[in-house]
Amino acid sequence: MEEKVKISMLCQIYGKLLTEKQYDLLDDYYNKDLSLSEIAENNDITRQAVRDNLKKGEAKLFEYENKLEIMQKVLLQEKIVKEIENEINNLKIDNKAKENILDKLNKLV
Amino acid sequence: MEEKVKISMLCQIYGKLLTEKQYDLLDDYYNKDLSLSEIAENNDITRQAVRDNLKKGEAKLFEYENKLEIMQKVLLQEKIVKEIENEINNLKIDNKAKENILDKLNKLV
Repeated sequence: MEEKVKISMLCQIYGKLLTEKQYDLLDDYYNKDLSLSEIAENNDITRQAVRDNLKKGEAKLFEYENKLEIMQKVLLQEKIVKEIENEINNLKIDNKAKENILDKLNKLV
Repeated sequence: MEEKVKISMLCQIYGKLLTEKQYDLLDDYYNKDLSLSEIAENNDITRQAVRDNLKKGEAKLFEYENKLEIMQKVLLQEKIVKEIENEINNLKIDNKAKENILDKLNKLV
């Protein structure tokens, strides 16, 4: 998985454990795709300060993931759900039963 | 869900965010079912100290759950997986296909 996508996902999972400021900077950079310069200007700090704060926030996110492994579990679940979806799609059963199961599967991840 | 079961589950999910000492006390009490007196004796502290430390650990676990809601998601997933299992069991398909899907579902929670 691309680093940027990974951090964005970690931010979604663990973001509430960060300080509000840390979360906002990561959110601006990884989810809202603002540049370092834009974030620096908006927050009236230097680009280097933005970079340092992003690094600190990222380190925290990876620390949480190392301990709790929630992202790893979610990714594994997504993979298994896709496999089950394929199996269900290949079954010769009526469409309503199929849709019903697929709807429920979608709610899992 | 019974409070003891809930805290045991929270401990499994967020335990690694606690200090080792906090985790051990909660694990002794909620998972290994030791009494306050036994834990006090094993750790050479008073029963009141055990009680205080348990309370602090529990408060942390609930704080993490309030923020991340992982247990809530896991419980919802378990419910949905049970529903899907029922649907699969009621399908008129061959047993091998059924078992294959049920095996995969079991890996989800």
